[in-house]
Amino acid sequence: MVEFTVENLSAAEVERLRGIFGPLTESVRELIDATIRTEVDADVVAAARAEIESATARLRDRQIDGPYGVRISETGQMPWGNPVIGLRNPIAPPLVLNHAPDGGVYCDFHLGAAFEGPPGHVHGGISALILDHVLGEAASSARSPRLTGTISMRYLRTTPLGDLHVEARIVRSEGVKTYAVGQLSDADGVTVEAEGVFITPKWAR
Amino acid sequence: MVEFTVENLSAAEVERLRGIFGPLTESVRELIDATIRTEVDADVVAAARAEIESATARLRDRQIDGPYGVRISETGQMPWGNPVIGLRNPIAPPLVLNHAPDGGVYCDFHLGAAFEGPPGHVHGGISALILDHVLGEAASSARSPRLTGTISMRYLRTTPLGDLHVEARIVRSEGVKTYAVGQLSDADGVTVEAEGVFITPKWAR
Repeated sequence: MVEFTVENLSAAEVERLRGIFGPLTESVRELIDATIRTEVDADVVAAARAEIESATARLRDRQIDGPYGVRISETGQMPWGNPVIGLRNPIAPPLVLNHAPDGGVYCDFHLGAAFEGPPGHVHGGISALILDHVLGEAASSARSPRLTGTISMRYLRTTPLGDLHVEARIVRSEGVKTYAVGQLSDADGVTVEAEGVFITPKWAR
Repeated sequence: MVEFTVENLSAAEVERLRGIFGPLTESVRELIDATIRTEVDADVVAAARAEIESATARLRDRQIDGPYGVRISETGQMPWGNPVIGLRNPIAPPLVLNHAPDGGVYCDFHLGAAFEGPPGHVHGGISALILDHVLGEAASSARSPRLTGTISMRYLRTTPLGDLHVEARIVRSEGVKTYAVGQLSDADGVTVEAEGVFITPKWAR
């Protein structure tokens, strides 16, 4: 069962939490990158690890029981634990999505060492993760989320790590099914194309 | 251009590095989970953040210029930066893949808070990331990597966070194209099916 948590936080409280947890998450993103790329010796790694475990213990002193979920505040959804856009998820690059007047969704973003598959290039599954999210966002409305039914990816060439662009839009809707398409691109053009069918879940109909 | 780095590290040296960087990466994975789930106050977050930034500075004291790449040691490939299986990538759950005698690939693994999409459930794009990787691994041989050409995912139901199983196998090969299928499942059965065409890249032909 998929359940949303309604917290009714005020806009000011959401901003206060954003100011506390946004910078923490950014610091952990930097640490992830350093963990992959470091060449320091064992004793330095041990010292770093002691600090990391101390930080974790501080944070775990009071924590929610399970995953973050999707909270709903007075100002809208707070998908802060999301692995693509989550303000509080260090795994998220994160993408900050823009909504165009015509209903399309687009975003410029950067992928570094943590997202590498073939040397110097984006892991094909990371491209799929991002396209799945952005097509789903284009297919969803404020009134109703839509979950992926089927999605297909076509890889035109390997995507280099670095500055990238993603966009998606709805092509048509039929009852509970919404058809969306999108693409990932670098400065030289499209690298991956995606198309998917997104379904309004039973609990949201 | 996709380039592999041949380091010719001995088996003993690979084990030594594994012993240093494996536990560091595990500590960062714990920190990622704590960052998402913590409810401590701003002053505790600030103290944790100071330790995290100190650890990052220690690790960055000596680091490689770009992403990790795929190193090749005397004992084989070291895809340690990989976001699905990487020993040194805190984003990776990580999956530890098993190769069956018939050529299939399978793995039992666990997904927690960092991989959440719909509340309590796996982000559909994370399922796609994992299936892309595992189908690609099944399609590849020790002699030649194969990269995703096209891949399609069919979501039968939402996948709960927790203990999961993934498997994939080749169905047929034609020249540079290898066709693979696979599925993600929980204790109650299959949640996502995938099929893909994987291509031997030009530089590996």
